[in-house]
Parts: sequence; structure tokens; C-alpha cells
Amino acid sequence: MLEWTRGQAVGEIDTPALILDIAAAERNIRAMADRLIHGSVRLRPHVKTHKCPLLAHKQMAAGAIGVTAAKLGEAEVMIRAGIPEVLVSTPIVGRTKIDRLLALSRHAIVLTVVDDVGAARAISDAATRVGQKIPVLVDVDVGQRRTGVLPGEPALALARQVATMPGLVLVGLQGYEGHLQHVQSRDEREAHWRASMEKLTDTADLIRGAGFPLDIVSTGGTGTSTFALEAPGITEIQPGSYVVMDDHYGTVQGVGFEQALFVLTTVVSRTRTTDVIVDAGMKALSSDSGPPRVRGIEGAQYVFAGDEHGRIEFADQGSNLRVGDRVLLVPSHCDTTINLHDHYHVIEDDRLVEVWPISARGRIR
Amino acid sequence: MLEWTRGQAVGEIDTPALILDIAAAERNIRAMADRLIHGSVRLRPHVKTHKCPLLAHKQMAAGAIGVTAAKLGEAEVMIRAGIPEVLVSTPIVGRTKIDRLLALSRHAIVLTVVDDVGAARAISDAATRVGQKIPVLVDVDVGQRRTGVLPGEPALALARQVATMPGLVLVGLQGYEGHLQHVQSRDEREAHWRASMEKLTDTADLIRGAGFPLDIVSTGGTGTSTFALEAPGITEIQPGSYVVMDDHYGTVQGVGFEQALFVLTTVVSRTRTTDVIVDAGMKALSSDSGPPRVRGIEGAQYVFAGDEHGRIEFADQGSNLRVGDRVLLVPSHCDTTINLHDHYHVIEDDRLVEVWPISARGRIR
Repeated sequence: MLEWTRGQAVGEIDTPALILDIAAAERNIRAMADRLIHGSVRLRPHVKTHKCPLLAHKQMAAGAIGVTAAKLGEAEVMIRAGIPEVLVSTPIVGRTKIDRLLALSRHAIVLTVVDDVGAARAISDAATRVGQKIPVLVDVDVGQRRTGVLPGEPALALARQVATMPGLVLVGLQGYEGHLQHVQSRDEREAHWRASMEKLTDTADLIRGAGFPLDIVSTGGTGTSTFALEAPGITEIQPGSYVVMDDHYGTVQGVGFEQALFVLTTVVSRTRTTDVIVDAGMKALSSDSGPPRVRGIEGAQYVFAGDEHGRIEFADQGSNLRVGDRVLLVPSHCDTTINLHDHYHVIEDDRLVEVWPISARGRIR
Repeated sequence: MLEWTRGQAVGEIDTPALILDIAAAERNIRAMADRLIHGSVRLRPHVKTHKCPLLAHKQMAAGAIGVTAAKLGEAEVMIRAGIPEVLVSTPIVGRTKIDRLLALSRHAIVLTVVDDVGAARAISDAATRVGQKIPVLVDVDVGQRRTGVLPGEPALALARQVATMPGLVLVGLQGYEGHLQHVQSRDEREAHWRASMEKLTDTADLIRGAGFPLDIVSTGGTGTSTFALEAPGITEIQPGSYVVMDDHYGTVQGVGFEQALFVLTTVVSRTRTTDVIVDAGMKALSSDSGPPRVRGIEGAQYVFAGDEHGRIEFADQGSNLRVGDRVLLVPSHCDTTINLHDHYHVIEDDRLVEVWPISARGRIR
């Protein structure tokens, strides 16, 4: 269904189209790896953002020790594409998913997280029946109020239980500080982050002190990755957005990666002097973090105008945008925008060089 | 990748899952057709909501004269599935799309809309080169401030131009009052609607008076469909949401269709007494119209907690939801939620009876 021609100029690509500036993405992949190269913190990047095995392989080639996935469905896509090790960063619950986890674990290293004794036991029991042992991290709530047991004694109590379960191997802790990734001020973000990480590393010390070795203490997104080098006790981070970035992260101080992701759209209507209508709406751009930014047109603002349209309003009514013109938008939230598209239109030097499937799009299970 | 077993109880379906109560959807399809059966207004339902050819065929069987699609990509899916007539309700701009329109028009009746002389001429020129004539409606802005020329003289001016173009046939007007669909008060909605429709039908009269016959005057969504019977001058309506409904439409007075669409989710974490975490977040539920509603749990509120999670907060802290339990959510916006999923899990009497592909999901071009 998708029509494209190698070598097309960006302005000739049919729209709406998700655009990946691959040189910028590769610089981002390299920059994150370089950031960690001299420290002891390793990189297990989160593929829930890009959902693309080839980008995961590029991250592995740059030094990642494996990848992180939000859902088993993403892990399946990555493992089938040859990624040898995946951490599933959300609890796996229910018989169907446990069976999938066990099937997948025969072909790659699959780690996962637990925050509930019953859910952990269900995995252990199923694994024991087929003679497997699943490596798990105890998930700790370091302030996000999402998944995870409380730090300290509750985490130790769960670790003790997990350690007795024959189908599990307790390998570490996970504490994702998702609530801090977008704190704009670098100093404020770092201060909150240190407090969060202290909870996590203190908990790791407590559990180790009780006689349970922990190889992994995993945390970290794009917004806090800049602090990871100076983080004693943290063994790895799992940032995702840095590969492509988005406008929301673009407002966070000191993140330091390049925008590599865009949505190309076409002006399809101009019946007023104050605005034009483009062909990318809520089915091409996620709205959970606000509207996208219009690139390269001073004072122009994008306003969502339904499922299939956006309105670009001008500060300067003299804008010369006409029907048929292309506009590049910077998505406000990369993860949810990428998940709306089936393909990356990969550009280099403003030319279309490849179209890559977003193979894990929609893998919400 | 998708695992399911015919006859599974709803509570056994792997999650997150988009659930379609087919008996309720069929009652909705019938109810809309019945609403129109004694009047002169015909039904051309919008398939941008359900994106599923089988549901479109059910609408045709109930009396629809054809369907409406937002994008050519949706029209392609419907026509390949045997739907004989599709109105593409947004302007078609650019050579690639015009070529697709012409290719498609050889196999079905494809109508589209124009609001720009240059864009209309581009279609006419291309059609003329291959000996085709494309039926078009002049798109009129009846107050939504999206696409469409202004009513009255500007619409007449465009109609005059279109009538001279050898590759086009002027067949009607479209004026979609999208801004009125969710006005909660029935009386207020009807008053605004009458004013909007007057603009549209006055414009139709003006154009007819100038010597241009117009067979079609198309308007109407789910929220205003209830008024369509009493609408002299309107020839057809194009509602979409009524088949499945959503929580946003559920708050609009006097709409009168049943909720047939749900997202099934699983409790994956409970580490606090005040809430649980479920496995459906912004990649399973659109957030543009607010959070989904929790069905069947008094006082429970869903709060988005990232791409893959929601937090269900209880008014009554004594809720007995546990890890592994299923919860049914009513999406706030059906169109954008359906567009996140690859399949409908079709249920009857609380059992899974079919899984249907959402074939036009992601067809944003």
C-alpha cells in the first residue's frame, strides 16, 4: 500500500509520513554510549520508544548489553530479530503471558520484574513445571506511584520470598523514576533524582546485607541519563527516547540529544488568511503531551483539528503557505506518536533512502 | 501473534484487548437505519470510526447507500472488501493521492470533496488525461473552521469553477458540523445545528439557482443525527461513532445508542490500598478526550499512568481488586482508541466468538 521511491526529496514524500533522520539518530545512539563508556554503568536501552529491531541492533553495536521492552510482545519482536537479551520492565501476569515468557526464554535471555508474591509464584510454578528458571528483578517504587513495592523492608520481604521460589532467580532491582524525566530544571531534576536513587541503592544494600546477591540495579530514562555516570550503586540504565527525541524532552534542560523524528504533513486547505489545514491529526500525532511544534515557520502554532487534521495558525498573517506545501512537525511525545505509524521514512541529506517497518507497533500485550 | 480461543469467557481474554459487543453494535446499526427509514435523508456512514469492512457491509445491508471515509487509504480497504461506493470526506491533494484516486475509481464509485480551485484543477487535469470524471462535492465550512469554503458566494464561486472542469462532475455540497456533535444539551445542540444547516441549505439553493443541479447535500455526525429527519434540504448524513459509541458521546443528551466498545485490561500491580495498576495505558486507550470510564466499579477512576499503564483509584479503599483481575473500560473517544488496535475481540453473551482485523487501522493517507 505504501508508495515511495528511493531518492525522493523529503518534499515529495506522500503524507502524513513519520520521518527518521537516521544520521541524527545514529549520533544520538553514539552519544549515549559515549556518555557511559568510561563508567561502570551499563546501557540497556528501552525499545518501547522506537519499536524497530534495526535500531535496537544499532544500539547493541554501540555497546548496549541488551534491551529493555515494556511488553512481552515487543520482546518477541526483538528476539525474533536476533536481539539476545531483553528485560521486560513491567510485571507479567496471567497464564497466557507466562506461557509466552517461557517459550521465549528458550531462545534468548529474558529477564522480567515482579512486585507481587502471587504473580511471582505463578511464574515460578510454571517455570518449574518445564524445568526453567526465569531471572527476575524486584520492582521498587522510587516515587512514581506506578508499579513496584515500597523501598526498604517491603522490597526485602519480597526479595526473601522470590529467593525461595525454585523457578525464579533473583538477579536485581528495578526502580524507574519516570516521574522525574521531564523536570525541566537540571538542578531540580538532579536533586530529586539523587533522593530517588538513594531509596533504590539503600534498598539494594539492605537486600544484599540480608544475604541475597544482586547483580543488577536498573533505573534511568533519557532525562536522568546525564546523571548516571555519577551514580554509585546503579549498574545500568534503560533510556528510550534519546534515539529520536521529542518536543517535550526538548524543553528539559541538559538532556543533550538531537531531534531525529518528524511528522511530514501537507497543507490540504487554505480558506482563511489566518491559518491553513494540514493532513496530520490525532491519528498521526499523539496529543497526550500537547501539540507538535511547527519546524521552520516563525510564530506558527499547530492546533489539533480532529482525527485527520491540524490547523496551523500564523502569528504573521502574511505566511505564504499554499495548498500542496509540506510542513515538518516535531512530535510532542515520541513513543505514542511512533506507535501510530507502520513505517519510518528514513532520510539522509533530505532524501528518502529507506522505509523501515515499525515491527513492534501495537504490541501492547 | 494473537492468541485466542473461541468460546473463552471475557475474563479469560489476554489483555489489553479491544472488545466489541456485536449484538449491541448490530442494534446500533439497525437503530440508525430505522431512524431514517421514513424520511428522505439517506445514510452514508463514516467508516473512519470502525475501520472494519465487515461492519461496513452490515451498515450497507441495513440500508446505507455507501460509506464515507476520511482518507483514501480507508477507501481502498473498503473497496477491496466489496463496498461499491465511498465518499472521501477530506480534500485529496498531491500527485500520488490523485493517481490512487483514479486507480480506485475504475473499480467503484469514489466521490470526494474540494475547497480549493488549484486542488480541484489538479484532479480534473489528471482525470481528463485518463478519460475519467470524478464526482465531487464542494466542501463548505458551516462553522467548524476546518476545511471548506465559506457558505454563500465563495461556495458558489468555487462551484462555478468546478462546473467548468472537464475531469470533474459537480454533484453536491458537504458541510460537516463537527464542532456541534458533542454539545451536551439537546436543545442547544439543535439550535446551533439549525443555524449551521441553514448556511448549508441556503448555499445549496444559491448554487442551484445559478443553474447548477446538486444531488447531494451531506452533513451530520452521530450527535446531530437525531435531527436529520426534520432537515429539509439535507439529502444524507455521515455519522460514524454510533456503531460503537464512547464515553464522550455517552454524556451528550439524546444521542440514544448503546455502548458496544470496551477495552479489557488486567490488574498487574497492587502495592497500595488506594489504587491498582492495570496494563492498558496510552498505547491502548486514546487520551485526547480524557480518561476512559471504569465499568461496574462504583467510584473507581482511571488515571493514565504512561504508555502501558493506568492507575485505577478507588473512592472506597475496600475495593477487592487483586492482581490478575480483569476490568472493563469504556473508551473516551472511539475513533482514536480503535486506531490503536489491530483486532476486535467480538463477544456475544460474554463469550469470545470471533476476532476481526481492523483492516483500515493506521490508514492515515
